[in-house]
Amino acid sequence: PIFKRCGHCQATRGPSYSQLQTSDVEWFKRCLGESNVVTDVERLKSFNRDWMKKYQGHSQLLLRPKTTQHVSEVLAYCNERSLPIVPQGGNTGLVGGGVPVFDEIILSTQGMTRILSFEESSGALVAEAGCVLQALDDHVTGHGYIMPLDLGAKGSCCIGGNVSTNAGGLRLLRYGSLHGSVLGLEVVMADGTILDLLKTLRKDNTGYDLKQLFIGAEGTLGVITAVAIQCAPRPASVQSVFLACPSFEAVTKVLGTAKTMLAEILSAAEFLDQHCMRVVEEQLEGVSNPLTDSGTCTAASAAVAAAPGSEGTNKGPACTDSNTTTGCSTSSFASTFDPDNAASSSSSASLQLPPRFYMVIETHGSHEAHDVEKLDAFLEAVMSEGHVLDGCVATSKAQSDSMWHIREVIAEACGRAGSVYKYDVSLPVQVMYQLVEAVQQRLASQLPHRQDILTLGYGHVGDGNLHLNVSVPSGYSQEVQEVLEPFIYEWIQGHSGSISAEHGIGLMKAGALTYSKSLKAIQVMSSIKSMLDPKGIINPYKVVYKQQA
Amino acid sequence: PIFKRCGHCQATRGPSYSQLQTSDVEWFKRCLGESNVVTDVERLKSFNRDWMKKYQGHSQLLLRPKTTQHVSEVLAYCNERSLPIVPQGGNTGLVGGGVPVFDEIILSTQGMTRILSFEESSGALVAEAGCVLQALDDHVTGHGYIMPLDLGAKGSCCIGGNVSTNAGGLRLLRYGSLHGSVLGLEVVMADGTILDLLKTLRKDNTGYDLKQLFIGAEGTLGVITAVAIQCAPRPASVQSVFLACPSFEAVTKVLGTAKTMLAEILSAAEFLDQHCMRVVEEQLEGVSNPLTDSGTCTAASAAVAAAPGSEGTNKGPACTDSNTTTGCSTSSFASTFDPDNAASSSSSASLQLPPRFYMVIETHGSHEAHDVEKLDAFLEAVMSEGHVLDGCVATSKAQSDSMWHIREVIAEACGRAGSVYKYDVSLPVQVMYQLVEAVQQRLASQLPHRQDILTLGYGHVGDGNLHLNVSVPSGYSQEVQEVLEPFIYEWIQGHSGSISAEHGIGLMKAGALTYSKSLKAIQVMSSIKSMLDPKGIINPYKVVYKQQA
Ligand SMILES: Cc1cc2nc3c(=O)[nH]c(=O)nc-3n(C[C@H](O)[C@H](O)[C@H](O)COP(=O)(O)OP(=O)(O)OC[C@H]3O[C@@H](n4cnc5c(N)ncnc54)[C@H](O)[C@@H]3O)c2cc1C
Ligand SMILES: Cc1cc2nc3c(=O)[nH]c(=O)nc-3n(C[C@H](O)[C@H](O)[C@H](O)COP(=O)(O)OP(=O)(O)OC[C@H]3O[C@@H](n4cnc5c(N)ncnc54)[C@H](O)[C@@H]3O)c2cc1C
Repeated sequence: PIFKRCGHCQATRGPSYSQLQTSDVEWFKRCLGESNVVTDVERLKSFNRDWMKKYQGHSQLLLRPKTTQHVSEVLAYCNERSLPIVPQGGNTGLVGGGVPVFDEIILSTQGMTRILSFEESSGALVAEAGCVLQALDDHVTGHGYIMPLDLGAKGSCCIGGNVSTNAGGLRLLRYGSLHGSVLGLEVVMADGTILDLLKTLRKDNTGYDLKQLFIGAEGTLGVITAVAIQCAPRPASVQSVFLACPSFEAVTKVLGTAKTMLAEILSAAEFLDQHCMRVVEEQLEGVSNPLTDSGTCTAASAAVAAAPGSEGTNKGPACTDSNTTTGCSTSSFASTFDPDNAASSSSSASLQLPPRFYMVIETHGSHEAHDVEKLDAFLEAVMSEGHVLDGCVATSKAQSDSMWHIREVIAEACGRAGSVYKYDVSLPVQVMYQLVEAVQQRLASQLPHRQDILTLGYGHVGDGNLHLNVSVPSGYSQEVQEVLEPFIYEWIQGHSGSISAEHGIGLMKAGALTYSKSLKAIQVMSSIKSMLDPKGIINPYKVVYKQQA
Repeated sequence: PIFKRCGHCQATRGPSYSQLQTSDVEWFKRCLGESNVVTDVERLKSFNRDWMKKYQGHSQLLLRPKTTQHVSEVLAYCNERSLPIVPQGGNTGLVGGGVPVFDEIILSTQGMTRILSFEESSGALVAEAGCVLQALDDHVTGHGYIMPLDLGAKGSCCIGGNVSTNAGGLRLLRYGSLHGSVLGLEVVMADGTILDLLKTLRKDNTGYDLKQLFIGAEGTLGVITAVAIQCAPRPASVQSVFLACPSFEAVTKVLGTAKTMLAEILSAAEFLDQHCMRVVEEQLEGVSNPLTDSGTCTAASAAVAAAPGSEGTNKGPACTDSNTTTGCSTSSFASTFDPDNAASSSSSASLQLPPRFYMVIETHGSHEAHDVEKLDAFLEAVMSEGHVLDGCVATSKAQSDSMWHIREVIAEACGRAGSVYKYDVSLPVQVMYQLVEAVQQRLASQLPHRQDILTLGYGHVGDGNLHLNVSVPSGYSQEVQEVLEPFIYEWIQGHSGSISAEHGIGLMKAGALTYSKSLKAIQVMSSIKSMLDPKGIINPYKVVYKQQA
C-alpha cells in the first residue's frame, strides 16, 4: 500500500495483485531451500537498484532457483496467488527493465550457471540462463570458438539477460543478431509450464519459430531458463586499430572503406566523439588517448617496436609502452605517413584540424598475413583520402585491450561525471551524429545556465547505432528531462530511426513506444502478452504495459 | 460440396466456410479490375497443382492484386464472408503449402513486383512480395550487393514465398537465416488490417519482434506484401571446387577442414551421393560428371588452361572444354597430385576406391589472391589426408555454373525418374547419411520386388541439412508411403533431428508435427493462429491445422 505510483511510468500498482504474505515466504523456503530465499533488506538493495542508479524498486523478496523445475514451481505458485515477479540476470540492463517497479518478487537466474553441453563439431552451446557471458566465452575458447556476441558488460551480464534484451554489442556487424544465432530456448511460462524449444539444429522449419518471441521480450512473456546458441569459430588472427578522424563525415567514409576493403574480416567498427575521450581521460585514472592531442604519438616516451604488419608498407616507427593502459602502447603511423601518397590538398588540410572523432576498427580472420595485408591497404586508403588524421595499430593483445578499454569505459566515465540520460538509437548513418548536435544546441539554448551538462555520442557506427549520453553533474531533474523528451524521440521518428537500437524499452521507454511502433503493432504485442500471461504477473509495467492499461 | 476430404491430410472442408458465389466474383472484379480476377479453368490449372505434381487443389478463383491496399480489401471481404484463401508466390514450395486443398481462393502475389527502395550505403532492399528472387539479385548486383539467400528455384520463387517458408538455400552457411537478415515486413492480417513493420534498420529493439512470427509461418498468419532485407556486399572473388570423396565420413572431414581453413570466406558446402550423380547423368541431356568415373579428368578432350590459383602450387595441368555443361570444364588436380606430399598409405589406398560422394565447395571473398591461396592450402590438406580422391577447380564463371548446375538439377532429375517422396531434414552431420542407408535397407527388405525405387541423398551438409529423395517410377502409392512413414519421422526424432530443415510443414507434414514439436509448443502455435486469424480463413489445413481440429 505504500508504493502507489511509479515516478517514471506513472503506473499505479496493479490492483489485482496480491500482497506478499509470510506464508508465501514460507512456501518459497520449502520449495527452494532457505538459502535461496532472501528477505534481508540490506542484501536486497543492489537487486532493487539498476546499474545506472536511476530506477529504485521496493521488493522485499529475492528468489534464486537453481533448476528449471524450481522456476516452474515458483511461477505456478505466483500465478495462482497473483504475485508479480521480475526476472533478473546480471542487472546490467540500461532501461530499468530488470528491477522491480513496486514490490514485485525478484526472480534471479544467478543460481542457474551450469553449462549443459557443447558440440565441438558444430559449435552449438547449451547453457543455463544465469551463465555470465564472459564465463561462456572462456568456456568455448577452450574449444576453439567464441560467443557470437560481446559487450562491455560481459563480466556480469547473463546469457538469459542477453537473449531477453536481444543484446547487440560490439560484433553484431560480423556475427549477426541473436535472432539469427540463438538456436533454441527453454522458457517457463507464466502458469509454470515449461516450454521446451531447446534445439541445437542450425535449421528447423517446423511451424512458427516461437523462440523468436522471447528474444528481446525483456522478460515480459516468460522466464528463459536455458539457451542454445551457435558459437563462431575463434579467429586465428585479430587486428585492432585506433583512428582519429576530422569529422563525422570522415567517420562514415572510413566505415564505407572498411566494409569494402576489410569486407569479410571486419568484425567491429565503433566510434566515439572528442567529448567521450575527454570525459574518459578526466574521470578514469590511467586511461588516456593512445594518440596525443596534437594527433601524433608521443614517441619520446616509447621504445620502437615493429608492428607485425609493418613489413613492406610505408608505416612509421611504432612505439610501445610497458604500461598498456596509458597512451602510445601501439604502433602509430600518422606522424611519418607519406603525404605524397595522399590526395594531398585534403590530407594536408585535414592534418591541421583537431581530431573530433575516434574509431576502433577490428578484424577477425583466419590468416594473419592476409589480414594484415588487407588492413595495411585499408589504412593507406583512408589516410590518403584524408579521412584519417592519425592512428595506431595494436601490436599485442594488451595493446588492443587498451584501445577497446577506452571504448568500453565511456558509460562508466559518464556515470562518474554525473547522472546520465542514456539514449540508444538507430538512425541512418549519415544523419546519426546530427542528433547529438541537435541536443547540444537545444540544451545550450533552453538551459543556457547549465553549462555543466555534458552531451556526447559514441556507439556501433557499423550498425547505425548511436549511444547519446547526457551527463548531468547535479543529478536527474525534471527540468533537463523535459528539454530532452519528447524532443529526442520526435527527432528520431522524423529521421526514420528507432528509439531503441539494442537496450530495449523496459520501464524507461514504455511510454514512448509509439514513436517507433504503430498502434496496430502495439495492439498485437498486447494481445500476445495477454495470451501468454493473462494475469500479467511477469515483469509488469514494462514494454507494453502503458498501452495495456 | 464435391470436395469433402483431403487425401493427404484427412481434413474435411471447414464447415464454417462459405461457398463462393457469383456475387463474390463480381465484387472482386470491381475491386481489382477484370484482368486480375481469373476463373478460367485452364488458366487455373497450374496454380492448383504444386511443383512436385503431388498435391491437387480445386480452386475456382485466382486473384492477382497489384497493391497492398487491394490485398487488404480482399482479405477484409473474405474474412467478412468466411471465404478461405491460400497465398501463393512462385509455387515452388515442396510441402504442398501454396496450393489449395479444396476450393480456397488463390491469392497470388505475382502482380506485386515493384522494387520499392535500395539504400546503397547500407544494402537495405525493400521490395514487394511478388518480386522473383533472381530479379532482386540482378537488381542489387548493379549496386555491388547480393541477396543473402540463393536457391535452385531462384528463377521463379518470390521473396514473399521465401520469407514465408524461411527458405534456407545454398548460402545460409555464410549469410545466415532470414530470421537474421529480414529487416522488416509489411503484412496484411486476416481481417484486412495492414501491419506496417517495414523498417530498414539493422537494430530495432522496440518491443516484441513481430515480423519474426511471419517468417516461416507459411502464409497461415497473414499475407506478406513487402519485405525489407539486408543484402550482403557482392564478393570480389568467387571460387568453386567440385570434389569426389570415398565415404560420407570423408565428406564430414572435408567440411571440418573447410570450416577451419576457408573460415570466413567459405560460402557453401554441398554434397551429393553417387546415386544423385547417376540420375542426373541419365535423366538430363548434356549434364555430366566433371570428373570421370575413374576419378580423373578426361584430359583427352580438353585444352590445357592454368587455373588462376595454380601458380606456385603443385597442382596438375588444368583442362577446359568449350561446352561447359559437359564434364571436364575445369582445372583438375588429382591425376597429377604428388603422393609424396600425402599421408601416402591412406592416400594411395583411397585412390583405389570409387568416389561415393561429391561435394561443391564455394568461397566468397574480397581478395582473389588471398582466397586462392587459402583454397590451395585447403585442397592440399584434404587431398593429403585422403579425404578427397579427385577434384576440379573452376577457372571461369561458366565452369562454376556448370558445377553448381549438377547440384541444382538433382530435384528435377529425380522428378523425371519418377514420383518423388521428398524429405528435407536436419540431423547432426555425423549421422546424417545413415538415414539414407536406413531407408535403402528398409525398402530393400520390405519391398524386395520394387528394385526400381531410387533412394538418394544430397543437401546442405554445411548446415546439417539432408535432402532425402525417394523416386518411384510407377508413381505415388500407399504401399511405398507406408514403408517410408512414420519410419523416417521416427528415425529423425530418435536422432534429435528436425522433420523439416527448410521446406516447412505445409500440408505434407502437418500430421507429423509432433515428431519435432512438443504438444505444449503446438498449443502455443495454435493459440497464435486463433488470435491472428480467428475465422481460420488464411491457408487452412496447413501447418497447425490438424492440431486445431
Ligand atoms: C557497461 C555496459 C555496456 C553495455 N553494452 C551493451 C551493448 O554493447 N549492447 C547491448 O545490447 N547492451 C549493452 N548493455 C546493456 C546490458 O548489458 C544488456 O542489456 C544485457 O544483455 C543485459 O543482461 P543482464 O543479464 O544484465 O540482464 P538484466 O539487466 O538483469 O535484465 C535485462 C532485462 O531482461 C530481463 N531478463 C533477464 N534475465 C532474464 C531471463 N532469464 N528470462 C527472462 N527475462 C530476463 C529482465 O527482466 C530485464 O527486462 C551494456 C550495459 C552496460 C552496463
Ligand atoms: C528446384 C527447387 C529447389 C529448391 N531449393 C530450395 C532450397 O535450397 N532451400 C529452400 O529452403 N527451399 C528450396 N526450395 C523450395 C522453395 O523454392 C522455397 O520454399 C521457396 O521459398 C518458395 O517460394 P515461392 O514463392 O515459390 O512460394 P510458394 O510455393 O508459392 O509458397 C510457399 C508457402 O509460402 C506461402 N506464401 C507464399 N507467398 C506468400 C506471401 N506473400 N505471404 C504469405 N504467405 C506466402 C504459401 O502459402 C506457401 O505456404 C526449392 C524448390 C525447388 C522447386
